[in-house]
Formats: sequence, structure tokens, C-alpha cells
Amino acid sequence: MSQNIYDDPQFQAGYRRLARSEEGLAGAPEWPTVRAMLPDLGGRDVVDLGCGYGAFARWAAEQGAAAVHALDLSEQMLLRARELTGPSVVVTYTRADLDTLDLPEAAYDVAYSALVLHYLDDLPRFLATVHGALRPGGRFVLTCEHPVYTAPTEAGWIEREGRRTWPLDRYGEEGERARDWLAPGVRKQHRTLATLLNSFLDAGFVVRRVAESVPSPEQVAAEPALAEEVDRPTFLMAALDR
Amino acid sequence: MSQNIYDDPQFQAGYRRLARSEEGLAGAPEWPTVRAMLPDLGGRDVVDLGCGYGAFARWAAEQGAAAVHALDLSEQMLLRARELTGPSVVVTYTRADLDTLDLPEAAYDVAYSALVLHYLDDLPRFLATVHGALRPGGRFVLTCEHPVYTAPTEAGWIEREGRRTWPLDRYGEEGERARDWLAPGVRKQHRTLATLLNSFLDAGFVVRRVAESVPSPEQVAAEPALAEEVDRPTFLMAALDR
Repeated sequence: MSQNIYDDPQFQAGYRRLARSEEGLAGAPEWPTVRAMLPDLGGRDVVDLGCGYGAFARWAAEQGAAAVHALDLSEQMLLRARELTGPSVVVTYTRADLDTLDLPEAAYDVAYSALVLHYLDDLPRFLATVHGALRPGGRFVLTCEHPVYTAPTEAGWIEREGRRTWPLDRYGEEGERARDWLAPGVRKQHRTLATLLNSFLDAGFVVRRVAESVPSPEQVAAEPALAEEVDRPTFLMAALDR
Repeated sequence: MSQNIYDDPQFQAGYRRLARSEEGLAGAPEWPTVRAMLPDLGGRDVVDLGCGYGAFARWAAEQGAAAVHALDLSEQMLLRARELTGPSVVVTYTRADLDTLDLPEAAYDVAYSALVLHYLDDLPRFLATVHGALRPGGRFVLTCEHPVYTAPTEAGWIEREGRRTWPLDRYGEEGERARDWLAPGVRKQHRTLATLLNSFLDAGFVVRRVAESVPSPEQVAAEPALAEEVDRPTFLMAALDR
């Protein structure tokens, strides 16, 4: 079973104050890139794997999706997602551990999973489940923490002689990394880029597009803190077709 | 035109002493991974783009390739490749700048390019040329310097408190990097992972496999210097199908 850190009170209190929590999709700098990877959702059946507060699920409903099945492990997040969504005939929320998830076969046109993969112990199982749940021609759009972000022993910038560098090490050493982020001991899985991409391919997906959270000069001008992301991207994104 | 650094006497003298120059394919730790990406070469028409001293071209001939067309920009390397190969009805060497290369259409079954992409100014042009030169179902196997290796302002390890880290920065800032490697001012092109992969896709290739130069524990035990590659891989590899 995955670590349910999002229901840890300290973690949840911190998470709720992040821009991406308070502002939804508009608070996520990578959203324009992710959105460009998504097909038209009008009339489509959508599954959102790791829905958090439901920002994507509500957006998908606004785009005219026929149905949005949104799943998350965190009771706190589902509670808030339901509050924010209100009564809906389109969006359905379900609690589920994505590491032991079962989904109906060929039931969805679009699968979406934001910032979840790096929490999963069993990536091949998850990918096989998503692949099987998509109809032929279906698309899976995902974001996850970037391997250069998850790899290091100490995930913090080094400032030396006026230069900021990211201390990459242990890139090739896959497995668990414990991080103090919003709460101590958040467990993440480090996987190399090759492992991620080959896992997608082994599950039967066709890789259509890959992206990284490198901000545009306009984004950095508007939000100078994003300059760090030019030095070292935090997220990897992919568009995969069944 | 690409920088012809391999014909710089100082660079060439240093390059000739590298393990991969003296021992050929056996001196390249990534070779077992690359070999696993190659199809059976028996009876196939092969093009080697950036052949260096011809180690791969000779190996391809030994595997029963029908013809091996091996190209390089460096006169010095082609001279040595021809010496090492001797008279051959299978291997043909040609001098060519891969940045302005033309190849016949649908003339090859297998294309191979080792450690060349990061020298090219015009990657889309090169990839379109290779794609067009392959027959339907043909495979392109390539290796290039890894984006985490090409990115940094200063490409050298930082030792701090007994820990070795690679000072990643400017990952998202693509373009030229000048490196002092065997000779001063070697020009390389830094491209992000997403740019590399999307360039392959945009050229019409299907991504079949991706790999990185992460050595196995057995390789590190046999050659302890390879431990650095666990902290930060030097090479990226891909198997692409037309």
C-alpha cells in the first residue's frame, strides 16, 4: 500500500497552502504544457488517477466530458474535492490506492495522472491497469517528478561563488528516497528516465510527446522564482497512446 | 559546418589513447546496451554516421552485413579506419559533414550513430535525412551525450564533505557549450531530453527503447572508475524505428 502522506495533518495543512492547491490548474506552471498534450474532452469518458482537490476533474467536466471518474487515496483531499465540486452528474469521486487499483477494461477514452507515479511502489502494475482501462486509441497524459529531481541524496541547491547548482548524485541508484517536504519522511520512488520511458513502452503505450517543466522566459519574468526550474526541472510529462 | 575537432592534432592525439579508441567496441562500457538495441545485421544494408576508427563498421561486416557505408568528418579518423579495415568489399568509407549530409532515399535497413548528435547544429535536418534513408521497418540506433552531462556551466564534479555531486544547472537553457576535453574549446550542443525525444518523434520515428549509461554493479566492481556513471550518466541511447 502507498504511504498516505496527504492525510497527515501537518502535510495536508502545508499542501493546502500551495499555489496549485489554492489556485487550481492556474497555479501549476506546467499546466499549459500538460493541457497541450490532452485531446478534446468533449463527450469523452475520463479517469483522473490521483485527483487531489479535483481541479482537473472539474475542468474536464467544463470541457464537456461525458463522465469523469476521479480517484485518490487521501480522504481529506476527496472531502475537499467533493465540497469544491458540489453535486455533479459528470464527476464521480472514489477512494482508491493506486498501487492496488483495479479498473474496468476499455472503459475510458482519456486517462490523466498528475504527480502520482513517484509515490507508487509498483509502476508496471499501474501502467498495465491504465493501459487496459483505455479504449483503443485512448490517450494517457501524465506528470511525475523528474528523475534529476528525485535522484539526489540531498535534494537542495548548493550555492557556491554566486552560482546555484543542483547536486546530482545516485541517479542510477533506483528506489526509495525519504524527503522532508511539508512533513518529515515523505517516501518517494526514484526511477531513471530510461526506466520510466521503457515502462511506458513495456505496458504497450506509444510515446507521442515528452515534456519537462522548463519555464518560458515570459513565465520567469512574471514569476522570478521559476528561474530555478531552468537550472533543474522538477517535473517530467508524457503523452502516451494506447 | 560542424567543428572538425577530431582533426585537431592535440585532440586527435588524446582521443587515440582512450580505451574506446585502443580497444574498440570492447573499450566502450555502453556497448552491451547498444548491441542489445541492434537487430540482426545479417544480409542488411547498414549506414554508420560518425564512424570514427571504424570499429562498428568492421563489427557489422563480421555480423554478415551486406554492405556498410561508414561516414565521418575527420580525415585522420577515416585514414586510420581504412588502415585498420584493410581491403573490404563490404565496408565503404566516405568523408562527410553530418550537418549538411545527403543520403539516398530508402537505401538502408539499419542506421547507427555513436556520440555524434551533440556535435550537430541542425538536429532536425539530420534526423529527417536518416529517416528518409531507412527502408520502412528500418531501425536507427543512436548514442549521444546525456542532457545532464551537457547542461552544466562547469562540467566537473564537486567534492564536499566526502560526497561527490554533479553540479547541474542551465538544464533548460539549450545551445552551445564550450568544453575543454582533450583540447580547449570543443563545441557541443546542449539539448534537453524532451527536445531530443520530441525531435525523434517529429522526424517520424517510433521510440522503441531508451537507455542511459548506468553501469551494472558487476561493471563497477570490474572498473571502479565507472561508479561516477551511477551518480551521473554520460550517455543517452535510443532505438528508433522508421
